Amino acid sequence: MTYRIAINGYGNLGRGAELAIAQADDLELVAIFTRRDPASIQTATGTPVVALEDLPKWADKIDVLANCGGSATDLATQTPEALAHCNTVDTFDTHAKIPRYFEAVNAAAETNGKLALISVGWDPGLFSMSRAYSEAVLPNGETTTFWGRGVSQGHSDAIRRIDGVADAKQYTVPVEEAMQAAREGKGANLTTRDKHLRECFVVLKPEADAEAVREAIVTMPDYFADYDTTVTFISAEEMAANHAGMPHGGFVIRSGRTSENVAQRIEYSLDLDSNPEFTGSMVAASARAVARMAAAGETGARTLFDVAPGLLLPQDPAELRAHML
Amino acid sequence: MTYRIAINGYGNLGRGAELAIAQADDLELVAIFTRRDPASIQTATGTPVVALEDLPKWADKIDVLANCGGSATDLATQTPEALAHCNTVDTFDTHAKIPRYFEAVNAAAETNGKLALISVGWDPGLFSMSRAYSEAVLPNGETTTFWGRGVSQGHSDAIRRIDGVADAKQYTVPVEEAMQAAREGKGANLTTRDKHLRECFVVLKPEADAEAVREAIVTMPDYFADYDTTVTFISAEEMAANHAGMPHGGFVIRSGRTSENVAQRIEYSLDLDSNPEFTGSMVAASARAVARMAAAGETGARTLFDVAPGLLLPQDPAELRAHML
Repeated sequence: MTYRIAINGYGNLGRGAELAIAQADDLELVAIFTRRDPASIQTATGTPVVALEDLPKWADKIDVLANCGGSATDLATQTPEALAHCNTVDTFDTHAKIPRYFEAVNAAAETNGKLALISVGWDPGLFSMSRAYSEAVLPNGETTTFWGRGVSQGHSDAIRRIDGVADAKQYTVPVEEAMQAAREGKGANLTTRDKHLRECFVVLKPEADAEAVREAIVTMPDYFADYDTTVTFISAEEMAANHAGMPHGGFVIRSGRTSENVAQRIEYSLDLDSNPEFTGSMVAASARAVARMAAAGETGARTLFDVAPGLLLPQDPAELRAHML
Repeated sequence: MTYRIAINGYGNLGRGAELAIAQADDLELVAIFTRRDPASIQTATGTPVVALEDLPKWADKIDVLANCGGSATDLATQTPEALAHCNTVDTFDTHAKIPRYFEAVNAAAETNGKLALISVGWDPGLFSMSRAYSEAVLPNGETTTFWGRGVSQGHSDAIRRIDGVADAKQYTVPVEEAMQAAREGKGANLTTRDKHLRECFVVLKPEADAEAVREAIVTMPDYFADYDTTVTFISAEEMAANHAGMPHGGFVIRSGRTSENVAQRIEYSLDLDSNPEFTGSMVAASARAVARMAAAGETGARTLFDVAPGLLLPQDPAELRAHML
């Protein structure tokens, strides 16, 4: 059985999904859709690039469309629109807006008799699954999530908008003492600030005032003012040599008790060289699950909480029981 | 909604399940079945203890029966027999025999229109889920599982059968260097011996020959001869004071690549004060999922690969999306 997958949006995430789909024997990448001029795009695998407006013509060639746009602007319109034509999977990751997004996507999916799996990736995604299994088995306890060490795109962008900044990269770094507290069941009252440091690497424009830039960063409300923030000025060459990647990762720690003096701990962690390639790989596995669930007649919106894990894997259930259980 | 759960078998695991069910608002423990004289058993929660032969009379009061017997002798007969009356969940953990057990349980479940979830716990169980998600997202890679530091019941029993041994406890201990190799993607060729040490704590009988006991342990085929094994002789008092618990745990490490030079790592670990309480807690959460899936009309045998993780939790899907995704 081969599932026919298409990608909508060819940024870092779309490229990550493309790589993952190309490596899966049971997934066929049939097209990459874009709002840009298709002729301007060179894909890694030579997959046809098609204007998004032509999606309706391709609908019967596609089992699942992976919407690889951003949560801030793209997905809230793209996913409901695409559901007129295809089943979908996406990585919607604005946690506070997930309930409203789910309702909108569910309505569009049900109207069209399609299936949509939302918010896959690692947080939301694999981290959510770790939280779910951990709380299921240890209901009496606390879960603490740490992010990093990894690049925060939003914070890097915020620094780049400061006068005198030519380029910037911000790393979110978990605090070791806070992780230790979480492991000991003392993580409940830790704030995001307690848990994370922010490391900023900045390339200045010629004649920029370094001290003014540093001050603008560390006092920036919401982004940095509430954190222990370090600012390191580096050359454009060092930025290119040492900070070109998009590493990320993090930890989900649950400490609980099954009876009065019996402590139990579960820890899940990711250490990723490339956040978009990893997330794209999760998109590919999730597209497989959507294809199978849609083929079984399911419609509406789903999250990974609704997906039996075996559906993410190419192996059949007997093989999973024999070799992975 | 309250699900009515019963336990079959009141050993360490049955007691662990009892504690977990008692703590869940949506689970009601209606009875504990035993092959022993019910009058001889004092339960932790005051739940009625009933002779197993009376199970048929209780069937319509029970949504799910948790079979808490052992894999070696009990479950292969108990689960198919119980399925004549109830849906079931169990912790069958003899990995090599799972495919055959699954087929037998599936046949009994289908014959009776019942649902059976097998092999829950942590390995098989949560470790299997970690392997599944990790291989789904990183198909190009290797998974290495380490067990411990924790008590191996089978190895402890083997030592106790040696002449001159009054009591014994064996801990399986993961080797730090091997774990580091697995994290670096060099775990594929590690043997179980490379990965684990065996620490034995032994109380001698009066006038036993310590050197002969040590020799009998470290040369024992299958159990110890192929491992680096340490033997420490201790007093009965020290055994009672420091080795009375049943701690366990372990690590599932997957190292993979999403493209040529892009390494990605997922690590899952458990650190458990009480193996049977943790496993019993997973039995309770799994019983909830069985009750829901059976109510939806499912029949036959299942493993956790077939169970959507949200079904394990008491919260409804909207609450999970809002607070756990």
